[in-house]
Amino acid sequence: MAEKTRILVLGDGSWGTALARLLVQNGADVVLWSAFPERLREMSERRANEAYLPGISLPQALRFEADPFAAARGVDLCLSVVPTQHLRKVVTRFEDALGGNVPIVSATKGLEIETFQRPTEIIASELGDRPLCVLAGPSHAEEVARGLPASLVAACDDTAVAEQVQAAFNSETFRVYRSTDPIGVELAGALKNVIAIAAGISDGLGLGDNAKAALLTRGLVEMARFGVSRGARLETFFGLAGMGDLITTCTSRHSRNRAVGEHIGRGKTLQDVLAEMSMVAEGVWTTQALFGPEAEGVAVSMPIAEQVHAVLFEGVDPEEAVRTLMQRSPTAEMEGLLPGSSGA
Amino acid sequence: MAEKTRILVLGDGSWGTALARLLVQNGADVVLWSAFPERLREMSERRANEAYLPGISLPQALRFEADPFAAARGVDLCLSVVPTQHLRKVVTRFEDALGGNVPIVSATKGLEIETFQRPTEIIASELGDRPLCVLAGPSHAEEVARGLPASLVAACDDTAVAEQVQAAFNSETFRVYRSTDPIGVELAGALKNVIAIAAGISDGLGLGDNAKAALLTRGLVEMARFGVSRGARLETFFGLAGMGDLITTCTSRHSRNRAVGEHIGRGKTLQDVLAEMSMVAEGVWTTQALFGPEAEGVAVSMPIAEQVHAVLFEGVDPEEAVRTLMQRSPTAEMEGLLPGSSGA
Repeated sequence: MAEKTRILVLGDGSWGTALARLLVQNGADVVLWSAFPERLREMSERRANEAYLPGISLPQALRFEADPFAAARGVDLCLSVVPTQHLRKVVTRFEDALGGNVPIVSATKGLEIETFQRPTEIIASELGDRPLCVLAGPSHAEEVARGLPASLVAACDDTAVAEQVQAAFNSETFRVYRSTDPIGVELAGALKNVIAIAAGISDGLGLGDNAKAALLTRGLVEMARFGVSRGARLETFFGLAGMGDLITTCTSRHSRNRAVGEHIGRGKTLQDVLAEMSMVAEGVWTTQALFGPEAEGVAVSMPIAEQVHAVLFEGVDPEEAVRTLMQRSPTAEMEGLLPGSSGA
Repeated sequence: MAEKTRILVLGDGSWGTALARLLVQNGADVVLWSAFPERLREMSERRANEAYLPGISLPQALRFEADPFAAARGVDLCLSVVPTQHLRKVVTRFEDALGGNVPIVSATKGLEIETFQRPTEIIASELGDRPLCVLAGPSHAEEVARGLPASLVAACDDTAVAEQVQAAFNSETFRVYRSTDPIGVELAGALKNVIAIAAGISDGLGLGDNAKAALLTRGLVEMARFGVSRGARLETFFGLAGMGDLITTCTSRHSRNRAVGEHIGRGKTLQDVLAEMSMVAEGVWTTQALFGPEAEGVAVSMPIAEQVHAVLFEGVDPEEAVRTLMQRSPTAEMEGLLPGSSGA
């Protein structure tokens, strides 16, 4: 029998736990590392992640390890599912522990506020040049953990690495497509959370399904425009990591980013909403990063993201923000979006 | 004061009624024609369309007329909102009544089963060459009638006509964008109903949000592929009439096509579902048209539409259809979809 693939999972959130569970079911030898030893002990004893993935049992074969060196020993592949703003601090702890050639799969969706960097850029800047792959797509952890079907994208410049990742993660219900556009897949995953906050605001204001669908459509256009300006490929935004994940995040009751928006649309302040949440809503940070000091070079028009920023951080009333968006004069649709592909 | 624009609306369904109401509010002189005089009488007396748009009051200024000649006298614009399979019969009644230069706006979303024609093709073949415009986008009638915001597309080869339509329909909450791709807008509106049935089946089987988002994403790709093969422009499918309307139709509780799929996913037969519905689910007909005798030349791969057809008309079990879709081997995403726009 071939030896099992050894995989290290960084992060004890709902998505990291659901993926660790999937990898064990796929036959890998999986060790989960967390920055919180007491949480590892609890998960190991109870065989459950009651804080972030309640009601789901974890396989006996899943190992837990708090020491970076012990966790990383002999691994073939590393999966990083650490919230963006904590990622740099976490990966530096693995600088000496993790072999220089071990590929890292990043499943974090965000942008670092101070540096405007994507998760794989953070990893590369701390751990040096190595194979990096981005895993994204419509995938609420709760549903994946319950064995419901999902389709995702593994994106890597190196097709051989993407195939290795595909082999490790793919199962009968968890379908992994390959992509050669990691920048696009990673940016789509980050930016959709900003649009999800806008969708939540629309829900909170009771604006209905028509308005929300239009918001998502125009939102994807501005996500794509931004992505292309940063070196991403346009078609990625119309695939699973773009449109697919955007739809799930904006319409699902599971979505934290949408929920943040909904509470704010109903009149709560951002501070109150965040104080009541136990999990991270990456979209709040990504919005901040988009309009932070490092993003100044961004010359792309993002009217929806601008209004989300105005509501979250500038005290603008949600209804006023929507009015501002609606007052933009409707002209020709999609002008100049797909210059290379027009059939006209 | 300038004279009011006179507009004739063909059709007494929920969408025709909601649009007639909107046009009156926008200041037009509107007459609504229906093939059922008794329904016109009822609507005129009660100032409501209780069968198809309950709870919404109709303005006193809205006129009702059962005679084609009286209805069409002196009109500047005609709006057609007749179900696709009845459209040919209806428009022939206006062959002599409607002036040869009156532009017709079509808001019907479907394909004729026997001929595989789009609504504007049916109109042109019966009423001859004249300005034709397609109006589509995410727009549940109930929400528009309640004054909730919506964004649509008016598509016409002739920009002047599109501008005329934009002027008639645009309001503070009803935003009309222009497009020069009527074929794409019309096909997107028809095809999304087929994907909506698939989305409903997924809901009926309880497959969750991840699966549905993936289905919509792959569904839009096959809609676009089909559209481009029939002369549509790719970007139209990623706009309001494509992605936007697809999202609304596949996620909204208002959607009839999604509801048909959901009932079937729960085990009902198509016959039972249709017998219980008072309104038309165009997607059932469009699926039939896609695989009818006139569609034989279509050499485009539409795996989702194929499975919808198999479930609706060939007795295939919904679970088996989903399994067939999931067993397709995941390879590279979006391969060859946007050949002209790849940034690679």
